[in-house]
Amino acid sequence: MIKHFADRLIEAVKAKGTPICVGLDPRMENIPKFIKENALKGKEKSPMAAAADAIIEFNKGIIDAVCDIVPVVKPQIAFYELFGHEGVRAYEETLKYAKQKGLLTIADIKRNDIGSTAEAYAKAYLGEVEMFEGDDEVIMHGFDADSVTINAYLGWDGVKPFVDECGKYDKGIFILVKTSNKSSGDIQDLAMKDGKTVYEIMGHLIDSWGADLVGESGYSLVGAVVGATYPEQAKKLREIMPQAIFLVPGYGAQGGGANDVKPCFKEGMFGAIVNNSRGIIFAYEKKGIDEKGYADAAREACLEMKKDLEKIF
Amino acid sequence: MIKHFADRLIEAVKAKGTPICVGLDPRMENIPKFIKENALKGKEKSPMAAAADAIIEFNKGIIDAVCDIVPVVKPQIAFYELFGHEGVRAYEETLKYAKQKGLLTIADIKRNDIGSTAEAYAKAYLGEVEMFEGDDEVIMHGFDADSVTINAYLGWDGVKPFVDECGKYDKGIFILVKTSNKSSGDIQDLAMKDGKTVYEIMGHLIDSWGADLVGESGYSLVGAVVGATYPEQAKKLREIMPQAIFLVPGYGAQGGGANDVKPCFKEGMFGAIVNNSRGIIFAYEKKGIDEKGYADAAREACLEMKKDLEKIF
Repeated sequence: MIKHFADRLIEAVKAKGTPICVGLDPRMENIPKFIKENALKGKEKSPMAAAADAIIEFNKGIIDAVCDIVPVVKPQIAFYELFGHEGVRAYEETLKYAKQKGLLTIADIKRNDIGSTAEAYAKAYLGEVEMFEGDDEVIMHGFDADSVTINAYLGWDGVKPFVDECGKYDKGIFILVKTSNKSSGDIQDLAMKDGKTVYEIMGHLIDSWGADLVGESGYSLVGAVVGATYPEQAKKLREIMPQAIFLVPGYGAQGGGANDVKPCFKEGMFGAIVNNSRGIIFAYEKKGIDEKGYADAAREACLEMKKDLEKIF
Repeated sequence: MIKHFADRLIEAVKAKGTPICVGLDPRMENIPKFIKENALKGKEKSPMAAAADAIIEFNKGIIDAVCDIVPVVKPQIAFYELFGHEGVRAYEETLKYAKQKGLLTIADIKRNDIGSTAEAYAKAYLGEVEMFEGDDEVIMHGFDADSVTINAYLGWDGVKPFVDECGKYDKGIFILVKTSNKSSGDIQDLAMKDGKTVYEIMGHLIDSWGADLVGESGYSLVGAVVGATYPEQAKKLREIMPQAIFLVPGYGAQGGGANDVKPCFKEGMFGAIVNNSRGIIFAYEKKGIDEKGYADAAREACLEMKKDLEKIF
């Protein structure tokens, strides 16, 4: 039997001694040139397949360099879908490789739909699928992630199918609440008659949806995405959702620092995981290091971030 | 030069004499058995590849049967992602084949993210991508759709990158406003201090975002998704967004009828397109027709739906 997702995540944070999540957003323009050139060499292949191979090569380098010091990685699927089904192949491979290296994975897909369509997404990323109904012989996995991000603008109908799959396979979800971008307030900050905002109500919904799905660690498999760029709002949300693990984007490149993410934590280094994408995987550019040293630079950036976060624990 | 997306859509509706959109949601359990068995035959391939091939075969049959009588198709990507990158290959092929047969396409992906990540999605589905910056020699297309659905819970930051790509390539977007499912009200029906609901405010935002992007037809490239199951709300939204083309799910299987979709239209058969997925592509099951006749049954179902909608024009 697999353990409850929240317990697995908390244990991984404990084991690595840090709540860092490495965002695998392989922006093609930032991938070292030598990797792209290597990918184009050799056997004939389409430019799309070459781009996908470059992504796989790059990600493996990063994963090898950080797998013993961080608990979790989060590949953002947009940068893979850019290259069609070949890019999506790189996404599958990345999830597989990360798992193989002992890392937990968050498929950052922000999927959302209703009923049976949401169920298809849930089965694709967290569950299983068969070709002929009732045929147990050929069980297929679309993508084998430990958790996904989802957008709950469509309400409970769009969340339930994910929760159902999580229950079957001990997986988790992170629902968008207050996102890190400037215009996140367009909808999320709208205030109701009683003064509550949409993001606060989303928080209350998440708290109730996850109430019965709590592991031994005291955390639920229903988590929340709360941007590092809004510490005041994070403080309120931490109170509204005492059992949710927060996935916190916006640290680093987007301007959030250690003090900004502090309100997202519940006790010490637990209760939140802090994502950093560009700041880690493309650290070689910022550090002015030769591109061949991109993986070492990523490892170094993780250790620096670990130190930075330790200030607040 | 390509024409403005809204003008292309309006012209296609005029040419076919109906605003029907055929939803290509290839649920594996409903695909005729003979197609799945054929897909498994022949050269060695993975079960995922066979499932993808079955989807392609099925969709081509549907597209051939309906392409001269409907203006647009909408493949829902969840049912393709179920089979990983092979399924996504089927998605690419489906978009390509539909275009080849003169149909407009809506990639029903409901993507959403911030800034540069939203830009990656926009380029993947509506634009172009290159492997090396400034390299015009190898231009790649992830997915070549005419339009996409998006979720704007993240605000303008998450919409602008799509609008930018639309401007460059004369494409369109449909933003979720009031969805057809039962619990759509969890967030969408929340009422502000002044009594306005979240879905109404989303409508006002869409109206303003699309105001300067109107074609000769008088419609904007920024459209809205409004469920057929909420006719009262649709009536309000039609007034709030006079320039938006409504994409209307929920007709048929979800319970909406011709009278329910009427408020979504602006003038005659224009201003809205009505989606029907299961009711058309799996009509053979409902009609009790042999599975070999699935494509003919789909065509017949389209003609019946056309007749049904004519009552309200």
